[in-house]
Formats: sequence, structure tokens, C-alpha cells
Amino acid sequence: MRPTIVQCFAALVFVVLAPLASADEIRSTAEVMEALEESDWRQPDPANLLYMQLASGVVIMELAPNFAPENIANIKTLTDEKYYDDLAIIRSQDNYVVQWADPAEEEENAKPIGSAKETVAAEFERSIDGIEITAIESRDSYADIVGFSDGFPAGSNGQNAWLAHCYGMVGVARGNETDSGNGTSLYVITGHAPRHLDRNVTLVGRVISGMELLSILPRGTGELGFYESTGEATAIVSIRQGDFVAEADRTKIEIMRTDTEAFADYVMSRTYRRGEWFVEPTGRIELCNTNPPVRIVN
Amino acid sequence: MRPTIVQCFAALVFVVLAPLASADEIRSTAEVMEALEESDWRQPDPANLLYMQLASGVVIMELAPNFAPENIANIKTLTDEKYYDDLAIIRSQDNYVVQWADPAEEEENAKPIGSAKETVAAEFERSIDGIEITAIESRDSYADIVGFSDGFPAGSNGQNAWLAHCYGMVGVARGNETDSGNGTSLYVITGHAPRHLDRNVTLVGRVISGMELLSILPRGTGELGFYESTGEATAIVSIRQGDFVAEADRTKIEIMRTDTEAFADYVMSRTYRRGEWFVEPTGRIELCNTNPPVRIVN
Repeated sequence: MRPTIVQCFAALVFVVLAPLASADEIRSTAEVMEALEESDWRQPDPANLLYMQLASGVVIMELAPNFAPENIANIKTLTDEKYYDDLAIIRSQDNYVVQWADPAEEEENAKPIGSAKETVAAEFERSIDGIEITAIESRDSYADIVGFSDGFPAGSNGQNAWLAHCYGMVGVARGNETDSGNGTSLYVITGHAPRHLDRNVTLVGRVISGMELLSILPRGTGELGFYESTGEATAIVSIRQGDFVAEADRTKIEIMRTDTEAFADYVMSRTYRRGEWFVEPTGRIELCNTNPPVRIVN
Repeated sequence: MRPTIVQCFAALVFVVLAPLASADEIRSTAEVMEALEESDWRQPDPANLLYMQLASGVVIMELAPNFAPENIANIKTLTDEKYYDDLAIIRSQDNYVVQWADPAEEEENAKPIGSAKETVAAEFERSIDGIEITAIESRDSYADIVGFSDGFPAGSNGQNAWLAHCYGMVGVARGNETDSGNGTSLYVITGHAPRHLDRNVTLVGRVISGMELLSILPRGTGELGFYESTGEATAIVSIRQGDFVAEADRTKIEIMRTDTEAFADYVMSRTYRRGEWFVEPTGRIELCNTNPPVRIVN
């Protein structure tokens, strides 16, 4: 599976194509993981983390300000002013998304959004200038170039780049107007990647811990998985920016860097499966089936 | 996105390539669904359905005997002899699978498998002779040709064909030996399609109803999502072949045929999104993001 000429050409412009190992150098994922050094991991900036407290535990999201600075600024304002506290997860659609919002957002007692903006310009895609994507060698159904930018799955056409709707990605719900999302309602992908949403909606980050607290929520029986009664919704206790969480309550989370040789080795180990169990090593990989590792170090 | 020469050539051999509509003929999915005729739906053969009764409801699976006749014969023997009754779902791994088995299978009080076989030859792939696949126009990461065969997602290289590990697909768990699976332990995909499993394990069918009863099961905290205590497992009340379920207890389920012009229209409507909400109509589609519709008619 070689990238096409177009892909190679475009890739040279701005991406670091993961170096190809020869077949006998390919190691198993376990071997690659064992050989990782401390410098192959990164600690996300606490100012780019959101801690969502549910009764069942904490969900941690990492924001991607390179891709959606305006939407993230508004989300940080909403977080800072405690807008999300006591809201609820009002939707869980099987093989698709969970979504939270103010259950009373259309009513008189809707929670005020304080100094946050009512509308924020769409950030569906951006220029590739100023960002780096480590491309992976994959024949992607949706984008000519795919890879990872600071750990986030991304697609590109050589001019623009955008985050991809993989499992665990966090997005800004919107109506028909492209600027109608402002972060008051966010969604998380809980099923097979709905990549047709790429470039149609603003993605702002990814759940890096606690995904299983969202993915197991009972599916709503209303249209699009909305709950039909408020009793079914899951209350959000609070959402806090990571640097406002007390040091003792922070999760020491680390994410594998995606701009290293070790990551290229990791991708190769996922492309050519060397485990004893595998009969067919595949020799292929797909963006949303790559899953850069995350570890808790405390 | 045109299929490559290789794809076209191979496709001519055995597949009906979904006819291409011109851009102004493309309808929205809602329009396509509204125009469906009765003949665009099929009633699955009850003898190819498995009804799994859980305390929370019924999960219905459709078996694919064209792809895995030997494994399915053994599963039907196990079902007929009530092997699965009182077993349990012992594993739920986030973004991956649920799996059931006899929790005591390695112990002295393991449930006897009766007249079922201990081992069944692998049915990871088969010749394309004798089956029909309606190919979709998609640049797939894992297979040169992809499409649907009697509603089941499948990949092909032009000589052989295999079922694809999309959401909801049911497979036969195995150890390192390729014939070590016999259907006593089955798994269902509950996350993003792990397509690297294609051609490495025998798929036998797809969940067509009740998927949300499996996908919400709490994730196991043991390695690979196995539950660490038996109390966490979900009991299986029974599994019955559809034609042994009392007429009154059957779900009148219908599945959109995938060998019709209507299905080609459906695929086009998923490829080019015409809804008001969409800014970027995409113009692309992916096998596991196609999801042929299922309806309950009672």
C-alpha cells in the first residue's frame, strides 16, 4: 500500500512521513512499547485539559487549540464561569455520540452564558501552514492525507487540515448555521468513526481518560438518541480546566508523542501485526484504528 | 473517487457495481427511504437468526452461512442443545468487543459441549465463486474491493471474499491455533471497526436488533476488558434459533436488500450528503460507515 503520487507530493510540503522500516525490522506493539523512553511521552498542558466530573468518575478531555482556537476560547470562558456545572448528558445514540447541554436551553429558565459568545465562527478546517502532521501510510476513505498532529487524528488535502471524527473526539454541536455552535453543547464520538462529519463541524479535542464512563451510558429512546425524560439524563457535576484542578486531584496522564521515531515504529507494529495469534499480518492501517497510547503514571 | 483499474477489473468478474447516479439525481437518505418499495426489503430466514435472551431484553443476530457454514453448523448444534443457556458475557472491552463463554470453561465443572465439535476449521475467507457482492465505490484502507453480500459487509481481493469487522459483527473467539474456535465463545464488535482482524478470525453474522443491550455493558477492568469477578458478568438466559422461537415471540424484522437499485441510491445518499445541515457533502463513503437499514414491522 504505497501512497499515491499526489499524496507523496503533498506530504513533502508539510508533513514528516513516518520512516518505513524494512520487514525484518518490524517489531510487535509490545516490543515497541517496552522500548519507549521517557522522551517518547508528553505531558499535556493542564490549561488544555477539561476535567468533567460525573457521579461515576472523571472524564478528561484534551483540547486542540491549533485547530479550533476561537471555539476553545469560548469553551474555556464557559468552563471558567461554571456554565457546565449541573448541566446534563441529554443524548446517547448507539454507535454514534453522546451529547451534553443545558436541558432547559430552549426555555425561560435557560442558564445564562455569562460573558461567553452566543455564536462562534466555524473552525471546520484550517491552513496547513503552522502545523505539523505526521502522516501515516494509509489509504483513507475520506482524506488524501491522514496522520496525527500533537496526538490528534487529522486529515488533509495538502492545503488545509482538519481533525477527524475518530472514537473519543469531542465536537461542538451546531444547528444549520455554521456559526450556531458556541460550545454550550458538546458531543463525543462513541461509535464507529462518522467521518462524513469531518469538515462539517468543529472538533475541539479528544477524551484521553474516562471514555468508558460515556460509552456505556444507556441509549436514549427518542429520535437521534435523545432521552425522552429528564430522569434518564446523566448529571454533570462540574467541568474544570486542568490547571484549576487541585494538584492532588489531577490525574498524571501522559500521551505518546506522535512526532517521534518511536511513534513511527508503533504505527508499523499496528500495520504489520507480528503477534503469534495473527495469520494475516494485514500490512494496512486506518487512521481511527491507530489509537496513540495514553498512560496514567500516578 | 474512482475505483482503480484493478478494482474495476476484479469487480466485473463477480460483483454488481452499484450504478452511478449523476449529481443532480442524488437524493437525500430520507428521500431514498421514503421511496422504498416492499420488494426493497427482505425478511431474514428464521433458521438463520439467533435470539439471545438477556434480563434486559433480546439481542437478535443474523447468521451468514455463505461465509462460515461449518462454524455456523456447530453454533446451531450448540444452540439446539442449549449449550449457551446460563452462560455469561464475561468480557466488555471499550471501543472493541463484548464476548461470551462458559465462565467455567477451563474448570472441572465446565459445561459439556454435547454433540458439537471441539474444533472447527477456520473460515476466515472463501472463494468469490458462488457469492455475489454489491461493491460500493470506496477507497478502503484494508481491502481492494468492499461491498455487501446479502446485507453483510465484505471485503475481497478479486479471488477471495471475507466478512468485515464492522460494528455489530459476530465472530468466533479462538486461541492461537486457527481451528481452536468452535463457537462456544462468541464476540460482537462494539467499537470502531477493528479491521485488522479481517481474515484472522471467522465471522459468522451480525447483530440486527438489540445491539444497544451489548454496547452499554460496563467495561471489564481486567486485561482485555475481562471482568475480574463473576458478579460483573451478564447472564445469558438463553439463545434460540429463530425458527424455534414461538411465532408470537418473534420480532418481525426486515433488512434493506443490498442487491437492488434502491440500495445503490441509498449508498449514493450516504456518499453525497444532501441535508441542509451539511456544508461539505463529502463525496466519499466507507464500508463500516454505510449501515444498511433494518426495520421492525410489528
